[in-house]
Amino acid sequence: MAFRLLPRDETFFDLFERAAENSLVGAEALADLCRDFSGVEEKVRHIKELEHEGDRITHETLDRLNRTFVTPLEREDIHRLVSGIDDVLDHIDATANRLYLYEIDRPTDAMKTMADVLVRACQEVKITVGYLRNLRQAAEINQHCIEINRLENECDDLLRQALKHLMKDRKDDPIAVIKWKEIYEKIEIASDKCEDVANAVQAVMLKHA
Amino acid sequence: MAFRLLPRDETFFDLFERAAENSLVGAEALADLCRDFSGVEEKVRHIKELEHEGDRITHETLDRLNRTFVTPLEREDIHRLVSGIDDVLDHIDATANRLYLYEIDRPTDAMKTMADVLVRACQEVKITVGYLRNLRQAAEINQHCIEINRLENECDDLLRQALKHLMKDRKDDPIAVIKWKEIYEKIEIASDKCEDVANAVQAVMLKHA
Amino acid sequence: MAFRLLPRDETFFDLFERAAENSLVGAEALADLCRDFSGVEEKVRHIKELEHEGDRITHETLDRLNRTFVTPLEREDIHRLVSGIDDVLDHIDATANRLYLYEIDRPTDAMKTMADVLVRACQEVKITVGYLRNLRQAAEINQHCIEINRLENECDDLLRQALKHLMKDRKDDPIAVIKWKEIYEKIEIASDKCEDVANAVQAVMLKHA
Repeated sequence: MAFRLLPRDETFFDLFERAAENSLVGAEALADLCRDFSGVEEKVRHIKELEHEGDRITHETLDRLNRTFVTPLEREDIHRLVSGIDDVLDHIDATANRLYLYEIDRPTDAMKTMADVLVRACQEVKITVGYLRNLRQAAEINQHCIEINRLENECDDLLRQALKHLMKDRKDDPIAVIKWKEIYEKIEIASDKCEDVANAVQAVMLKHA
Repeated sequence: MAFRLLPRDETFFDLFERAAENSLVGAEALADLCRDFSGVEEKVRHIKELEHEGDRITHETLDRLNRTFVTPLEREDIHRLVSGIDDVLDHIDATANRLYLYEIDRPTDAMKTMADVLVRACQEVKITVGYLRNLRQAAEINQHCIEINRLENECDDLLRQALKHLMKDRKDDPIAVIKWKEIYEKIEIASDKCEDVANAVQAVMLKHA
Repeated sequence: MAFRLLPRDETFFDLFERAAENSLVGAEALADLCRDFSGVEEKVRHIKELEHEGDRITHETLDRLNRTFVTPLEREDIHRLVSGIDDVLDHIDATANRLYLYEIDRPTDAMKTMADVLVRACQEVKITVGYLRNLRQAAEINQHCIEINRLENECDDLLRQALKHLMKDRKDDPIAVIKWKEIYEKIEIASDKCEDVANAVQAVMLKHA
């Protein structure tokens, strides 16, 4: 390892990875809830706990920023990255919460498919965030960011089809349409937030190029 | 006062404080409207005037940025801060507007409680923005930002409960559900925007740490 | 032309202008669809192709950023500008898509007017983005940004009136209310995104002032 005048605080990379892993666990918990819609209250509460854990990681990161003299990335980028990863989980929690709050009978096939795509997007976010330790691997970072973009597009296409069928199939139950529209849109926003993290990583990479 | 080679333009801090005070007055006017739902058209027009005043403060700030050589904070941060404070009031105005536009009979208890929480968030924003004059008080700034976060979480919990009861209590009136869902979500976004301002202040503080 | 130690890559300005022109063509296609609501599927598919072209311009810009040593603007600003212009078109595409997806019979007058205002906002965005080649023209840039702000306000006023009448006129068809509310809000967000681009141009101008 090369000599440095001041050692970098590598803990920030650990915190990014913990945050990204925590969001992935949340996405997997949502996908599991959609596959096996039993014990809903308990499963939704578990996702809420993961969301609280995400808040704790964010606060720990910001605390450390205040106490650290030399940061490995610019301070505002660390702030943006950890807030972005937290936003993904916030929308996963909000989606799970609506399934419980609105006393949904059972998830639709569209919901299951969207949750699976979100898991893949969160896996890619975890990989991409891992590259922050070595920003010189621009080709690899871009490849994973393109994949996150592709998954976000896939989620948006699934949303469009889901809305189309929702308006037809449930046209006699406007309250059901309102509830499901919100749930579908919330999970699609979670995939949008994955794209925001990818954009933040790319922006950091461009600064350090 | 210490000698400086170039005097800082302290007017920017005055403008931030005027903007934050103006948003707080808007939040208080919304809370008042919810408590005493009489003279609605007049009260909604008053909030609209406050929103125009907010736009004037924003434009005055940007004008001054263009004419100022040495700014006390980075130019893009001044832009972000004043736009952020303006966004809070834009959503307060949009919320009040929907109460009038949709010919709402009377505000719900949930609405009153959310408006009160928003007032407290705007009070905290005003305090936090006041610390921009002295960014070395990191502990105090963080404490107020954490409180803004807490109030935003409280507002989100109130939104969830309000939506849950709305879907049940008004299930025979889908148009009422649509109207109230938008109103509740708009006021919750106003509290989100308070959190964005807190994040912007924290980011500025981190740069100047 | 003045001698430079390293020639600036002017291609980025070409890419911004291509992106802004492409978004304008998309806005015009949406306004045309609203005026002449025939061959809807074909016209909506054409807007989708423009949106794909927008994605290609964005990717070309980011690719070039990775291969360019000296950029004419800060890297993260180039990223923000091209993403912002792309967002406008994404929301134009989403609006057109909903008209088709929801099997809308015919556009309302409110929709036609909003689409026309959006065309004017996109024209202003194209002009504003053109000034990035010469950021010293601060007065002109601000003037066009103020006009974009004004058009965004106009679009928001149109949205409010459209929602007011929608809730009254279609109160017996909640599904129609849900569909049209989404369409109106989506086109208004497209005009918001024009304002974001204006803000990004102003922020760049302030940095280079």
